[in-house]
Amino acid sequence: MTIAVQGYATHSPTDELAPFTFERRDPRPQDVVIDILYCGICHSDIHFARNEWGWTQYPFVPGHEIVGRVAAVGKEVSKYKAGDLVGVGCLVDSCRHCTSCSDGLEQYCENGFTGTYGGEDKIGGTPHKMTFGGYSDKITVDERFVLRIPNNLDLAAAAPLLCAGITTYSPLRHWKVGPGQKVGVIGLGGLGHMGVKFAHAMGAHVVMITTSPKKGEDARKLGADEVLLSKDAAAMEAAQNSFDFLLNTIPVGHDVDPYMALLKRDATMVIVGAVEPLTNVSGIPLIFQRRSMAGSLIGGLPETQEMLDFCGEHNITCDIETITIKDVNAAYDRTVKGDVKYRFVIDMASLKA
Amino acid sequence: MTIAVQGYATHSPTDELAPFTFERRDPRPQDVVIDILYCGICHSDIHFARNEWGWTQYPFVPGHEIVGRVAAVGKEVSKYKAGDLVGVGCLVDSCRHCTSCSDGLEQYCENGFTGTYGGEDKIGGTPHKMTFGGYSDKITVDERFVLRIPNNLDLAAAAPLLCAGITTYSPLRHWKVGPGQKVGVIGLGGLGHMGVKFAHAMGAHVVMITTSPKKGEDARKLGADEVLLSKDAAAMEAAQNSFDFLLNTIPVGHDVDPYMALLKRDATMVIVGAVEPLTNVSGIPLIFQRRSMAGSLIGGLPETQEMLDFCGEHNITCDIETITIKDVNAAYDRTVKGDVKYRFVIDMASLKA
Repeated sequence: MTIAVQGYATHSPTDELAPFTFERRDPRPQDVVIDILYCGICHSDIHFARNEWGWTQYPFVPGHEIVGRVAAVGKEVSKYKAGDLVGVGCLVDSCRHCTSCSDGLEQYCENGFTGTYGGEDKIGGTPHKMTFGGYSDKITVDERFVLRIPNNLDLAAAAPLLCAGITTYSPLRHWKVGPGQKVGVIGLGGLGHMGVKFAHAMGAHVVMITTSPKKGEDARKLGADEVLLSKDAAAMEAAQNSFDFLLNTIPVGHDVDPYMALLKRDATMVIVGAVEPLTNVSGIPLIFQRRSMAGSLIGGLPETQEMLDFCGEHNITCDIETITIKDVNAAYDRTVKGDVKYRFVIDMASLKA
Repeated sequence: MTIAVQGYATHSPTDELAPFTFERRDPRPQDVVIDILYCGICHSDIHFARNEWGWTQYPFVPGHEIVGRVAAVGKEVSKYKAGDLVGVGCLVDSCRHCTSCSDGLEQYCENGFTGTYGGEDKIGGTPHKMTFGGYSDKITVDERFVLRIPNNLDLAAAAPLLCAGITTYSPLRHWKVGPGQKVGVIGLGGLGHMGVKFAHAMGAHVVMITTSPKKGEDARKLGADEVLLSKDAAAMEAAQNSFDFLLNTIPVGHDVDPYMALLKRDATMVIVGAVEPLTNVSGIPLIFQRRSMAGSLIGGLPETQEMLDFCGEHNITCDIETITIKDVNAAYDRTVKGDVKYRFVIDMASLKA
């Protein structure tokens, strides 16, 4: 027996997403079955759907910013019961015994975590080899990879917390951002707008670093205390050696040295967006003030729950535009153009419409 | 009154070094006058002498790996007396009031430290605007920038500790290298050979990472437990995710990603040699295991003294080739070719010969 699921899939790099019926596994004792209410659109969904990273297998169902309600639980499930509001992020499985998994850092699983979509499904129980994501009406997930959504949050606006939220929260926490610090967020998109909200809520003095005066003004509304225009050479020079931390959300390759020079001695810039080659990287800004450039990938399950609880306490959600599933292909095109403030979220009720 | 000094200087980027007479300041109450016994040849000396960084002023006297004996002290000097064995490294002055100076990290002085050579002399007392380095028979230095050389060390072989030594010791200490860790030293030259000795003495499992099997064998004699040939793709792949720390001493621009992939989660590679642009740097190896790339510059005065004391305890000096001052130009050519194991040191008695 399996669970019949309705979703949207694409069948080639150039096909549009279209209705698709597939199967989820019946719940094992440790599994939670979730009725999906909302799913965010992450830029990675698009890279995957269009095979821009070269490893997509079709049919492909995107979606890893999932919010829903528990429909049923296996008999060993202790944390959730039917009716609970829950979320699923970028991971649905990992080895659970390596050092990273033991540390609750499943995103760095040494044996490779299983992505919520496009990953090899090692649990099985369906005819499909690969995992299918959240652009669908139901999902079966091991309790360990299910998160609790605070009741006070808007559910649609909470969905992108599962990827954009944790991707920015995790490095801010890991590098101990807090009051008395000057923190720069570079780039204002899905990630950057959450970086501004979190850094502000953590008590830092937040500087939006952007090429665009308009985005600078937008960032002030999100909690930025200051704006630094990266094309203003005099302003960039005046800001050298002044930042305690930089969260770099630029999603493409870019010149690094001008940002590194903004950091104080012993401070760190963390890359969360750029997987393309970085340019203009030299040892000089690293060596002369013992600065660091690091990277950070989403977050582990314990920290993702901590982030959601933090959002509940501080009433933080994402700024979103809600769409129906039929609009998903148009939303992809707008996302590629950067024409969204700041995340599209699909109302999954529209699947039945 | 000033002190008459004999040394070697160059007068243009293309001139050879030749005898040169100049003046040092008479000691202020806090100054130490040192009879220089030995001075190491650092590759930076050559870059400066040949104006390869573009800011050299002539006449130029190189040398910042200085060992000597105290000839006289000012009346407020408390740490040294005539006859003491002392050293001077890359710095002879700094602002002394910024956060970095207050932290004993004068090398990161926010107002700019004064280099032992080629720096603007803010103390004065001579007709010269710029500082003159250690290829000379005497130097006057503020007590704060003078270091004690342990009596048990070979004096000539101790000279390069003042630059090559502290440059490698400082990052190993700052990033807490010690027993139970696998530490890679990339590149075997003046810096790399000290990195191997220090990492070994700190109790780490030391891996020499080099293009050259011959250098690998040399590194084993210096304390390396293992050799990883960076041109051996299979060996590099097998060593991924296995290093707790990498000390990168490559003195020129180079591809970074292959080395970053060697690091474990949360581990750091520190650049101490390359001031030229780095190539093949992407966010992927940073992001996927939260790795860091950092830089480090020599060391502050307290840590340099700690390093010298550590060398005294562990009987560590540099492997050197001692030369007379007349051979300095030939030694420059050999240094540029990498034809030295691992540092030239000038016996300053040869100035009088």
